Amino acid sequence: MSVINLEDKFSRFNDHWSPKVVAELNGQAVKLAKVMGTFVWHDHAEEDELFHVVRGTLTIDFEDRDPVVLHPGELYVVPRGIRHRPRTAPDEEVWLLLLEPIATRHTGDVDSPMTVRNYERL
Amino acid sequence: MSVINLEDKFSRFNDHWSPKVVAELNGQAVKLAKVMGTFVWHDHAEEDELFHVVRGTLTIDFEDRDPVVLHPGELYVVPRGIRHRPRTAPDEEVWLLLLEPIATRHTGDVDSPMTVRNYERL
Repeated sequence: MSVINLEDKFSRFNDHWSPKVVAELNGQAVKLAKVMGTFVWHDHAEEDELFHVVRGTLTIDFEDRDPVVLHPGELYVVPRGIRHRPRTAPDEEVWLLLLEPIATRHTGDVDSPMTVRNYERL
Repeated sequence: MSVINLEDKFSRFNDHWSPKVVAELNGQAVKLAKVMGTFVWHDHAEEDELFHVVRGTLTIDFEDRDPVVLHPGELYVVPRGIRHRPRTAPDEEVWLLLLEPIATRHTGDVDSPMTVRNYERL
């Protein structure tokens, strides 16, 4: 139980598409990520996922509906089972706060070179 | 499924100590609240509660340890079963983003005039 300062936590890493756990509650993990470029298409069969943009602009593509564009101070919940693909402008680093069950793999059902198997804690 | 803009949501209400639900995921509710003054001592027997300060300074008192002071961009998880009392400076309005199970009553085990029984959705 200590105060989590988001700027401080973000200052501690620079790798992309590699979420770090900063808090846990009620079986959910609060994760921070820096992302740039285009992620893999994936879904999470049993898990809703919250995206909260802290810096930059994030686009989330969907297969069957228009993309969603998120700016700082905006959040969005991708419901379980919905295939999605987060992306940024090619050279723009975006900072995200994510909330999802502790067990969630960020690439969902997809095994990818981008898949992180053990989330670092900050 | 729509984009949730926090500034927009906060602009829609002015009452204090009355959290509004803006999103749900995995059995958890994301709530926004404006608070001012001192809340009631309470705990939540089965539920961890996340406080994320968006504006102002929030102090959380505990019975058996030093208070925690949270500024904008800082967050804190009060574990289940820990008695706590959020408060602000007497005339300072503080904006909070809260995360807790959907069923959680914000006054926990305590029936108070401040207790909200049906959370408004924004």
